[in-house]
Amino acid sequence: MTTVSLSPNGDFLTLDLSGQPCRFHAIWLRDNAQDSETRAPGNGQRLLALRDIPAETKLVAAEIAESKLQVSFAPEDKTVEFDLSWLAANAYDKAAPMEKGWLSEGVEPWDSGLMSDVPVGDFQDLAKGGPALRDWLGKVTRYGFGKIENGPTEDGALFDVVDLFGYVRETNYGRHFEVRTEVNPTNLAFTGLGLQAHTDNPYRDPVPTVQVLYCLESSAAGGENMVVDGFAAALRLRAENEAYFNVLAKYCARFEYAGDAETCLQSRRPMIELAPDGELIGVRFNNRSLGAVNDVPFEEMASYYAAYRRLGEIIDDEAMEVTFRLEPGEAFVVDNTRVLHARKAYSGAGTRWLQGCYADKDGLWSKFSALSAQFGG
Amino acid sequence: MTTVSLSPNGDFLTLDLSGQPCRFHAIWLRDNAQDSETRAPGNGQRLLALRDIPAETKLVAAEIAESKLQVSFAPEDKTVEFDLSWLAANAYDKAAPMEKGWLSEGVEPWDSGLMSDVPVGDFQDLAKGGPALRDWLGKVTRYGFGKIENGPTEDGALFDVVDLFGYVRETNYGRHFEVRTEVNPTNLAFTGLGLQAHTDNPYRDPVPTVQVLYCLESSAAGGENMVVDGFAAALRLRAENEAYFNVLAKYCARFEYAGDAETCLQSRRPMIELAPDGELIGVRFNNRSLGAVNDVPFEEMASYYAAYRRLGEIIDDEAMEVTFRLEPGEAFVVDNTRVLHARKAYSGAGTRWLQGCYADKDGLWSKFSALSAQFGG
Repeated sequence: MTTVSLSPNGDFLTLDLSGQPCRFHAIWLRDNAQDSETRAPGNGQRLLALRDIPAETKLVAAEIAESKLQVSFAPEDKTVEFDLSWLAANAYDKAAPMEKGWLSEGVEPWDSGLMSDVPVGDFQDLAKGGPALRDWLGKVTRYGFGKIENGPTEDGALFDVVDLFGYVRETNYGRHFEVRTEVNPTNLAFTGLGLQAHTDNPYRDPVPTVQVLYCLESSAAGGENMVVDGFAAALRLRAENEAYFNVLAKYCARFEYAGDAETCLQSRRPMIELAPDGELIGVRFNNRSLGAVNDVPFEEMASYYAAYRRLGEIIDDEAMEVTFRLEPGEAFVVDNTRVLHARKAYSGAGTRWLQGCYADKDGLWSKFSALSAQFGG
Repeated sequence: MTTVSLSPNGDFLTLDLSGQPCRFHAIWLRDNAQDSETRAPGNGQRLLALRDIPAETKLVAAEIAESKLQVSFAPEDKTVEFDLSWLAANAYDKAAPMEKGWLSEGVEPWDSGLMSDVPVGDFQDLAKGGPALRDWLGKVTRYGFGKIENGPTEDGALFDVVDLFGYVRETNYGRHFEVRTEVNPTNLAFTGLGLQAHTDNPYRDPVPTVQVLYCLESSAAGGENMVVDGFAAALRLRAENEAYFNVLAKYCARFEYAGDAETCLQSRRPMIELAPDGELIGVRFNNRSLGAVNDVPFEEMASYYAAYRRLGEIIDDEAMEVTFRLEPGEAFVVDNTRVLHARKAYSGAGTRWLQGCYADKDGLWSKFSALSAQFGG
């Protein structure tokens, strides 16, 4: 049985939710009232600003009936109802803060073990929307990447992928860019190095939060795509050496790109990005566009470089990577704030033509949430 | 005279730059070498990853000649040169860290005093590029907003403004949105409230970092546009009550928008955003889309709400605002991570037609930097 009691001065109430006492402030309850004078019934937008709510707001009555909490406020003389389930879901009277690097619910770090269960969707199914799209988007939000198979092999087909969940982020590289290479067997010796796994465009702020890479032709041997979970790499660094994790999160790196006279992109952001309360929310890793890091104090620079080196070693560890080969009509989508990607070296003769573009992940998460609300899940 | 000396074990050197001793680590110098084997001569991209540089890199020789520092590394047996001016500009052996809320050089907070000097550009001049565009973009980067006059009055003219510096960020609202109102004099009573100044789309992550609002028709009285510097508001809050500033920076708010069955945008970001080393880099303020804040511990929620209220009062203070009226062919651009905007109430009969769109500020800053490199400034 749920009970409620008011504090002596009406500043807060205590709700006993499944045996767990949980306090809510008067001002919080008033500001979050769900009635039609406070929130627009259609889109849920708040109709009041905090300036419209008296600073001295107190609770003067509270009672529970039929899974609802009814509360009355003074001096407004206003009574509103809350669903107990809504209060339970939005309770903020919690235990101690979590350790630095905590992950949002629904985000799961992975390593090469995911190779046997790469998140894949069939383009024809996804294009219908509904539960198939919900499931695939759910995997992309959980793992930060997803593969698509069985798509068209037409120039521009990558835009059909973006249409599934969002909008192209146009940049100085255009609405899309070409990754077209004629493989030249006489140059085989030079293809062995490959690119270190990286996130794209860290010199942009905001970075493009999603990248789509779509394969149109692929007759060359090799050229597999490889992805590494930057969150898993950061958490492994933390497990190995917490000071290394902390120094990469505490100081900003600098990234820059000046490809032509028209372009001079620069950013100042950390390699490991935490929300102010410690949630791990982003990874930037790109040796090619790292500028001169000059915001780390002299006393910590050696440690910073050692941490940067070790993070790179973890990223390079094959135990962290998932590889797959894109065939024509196949694509992959990565959360560019989290998952690093690379291309393995080519070998043999043939052609390889991919198209890439950027998009944003707020649209992707929004689509997933909307489909989940509509179809459950 | 500049002198240089090596540390006993070659881990770092000490440069005497204008009487200021300044230390640089061997690994930092090696990683930031400017030679053509380390950096691509064209675009400056680094050709090596840190894994290609030995962890045990030491300095074995250093000397100064003709404004350059020449250093040699072991075990690579590699010698490179640095311009002393480049080293001075990138020195990291600095004094104590700055206080929370420091601003990047070139960013200037403002209040209503800026009314007499609103950053304005003539569209015809700006469209030519060059110094005029550099100067106007420089003001936008400095103040976070700028006005444009003397532009075309055609449907879609706002895209010409975006073309000056970047690319449209398309969202679920489209590539642009209409702000078209038939003013109805019988409804005058309902126009008095106006909208509280706000940043747009805080429920998006990343938020659109630039907004353009372009006026095509404006025969109604009133409807002035108003902007408030969110950085100045945050710094005033800090000056008044540092604990208020800190609590809004330390905890994430929640923002959400679910306008239709297809859209369910949610974000978890602080109202005052600091880089990990304390730089003030963003403000999110929007009463309509603030969700239930549930990441603030019970013990700090009352203080959080008091801080949020006080920040709103500062934002509402006329001493903070700059107002101007947009006539047909005029537009304004705001840095949506910093400057809040609002529209004052209409009065009288007539029409008002504006078009708005979003873009990103990395392109704007890039264009400004590139023009500054080209034309000085």
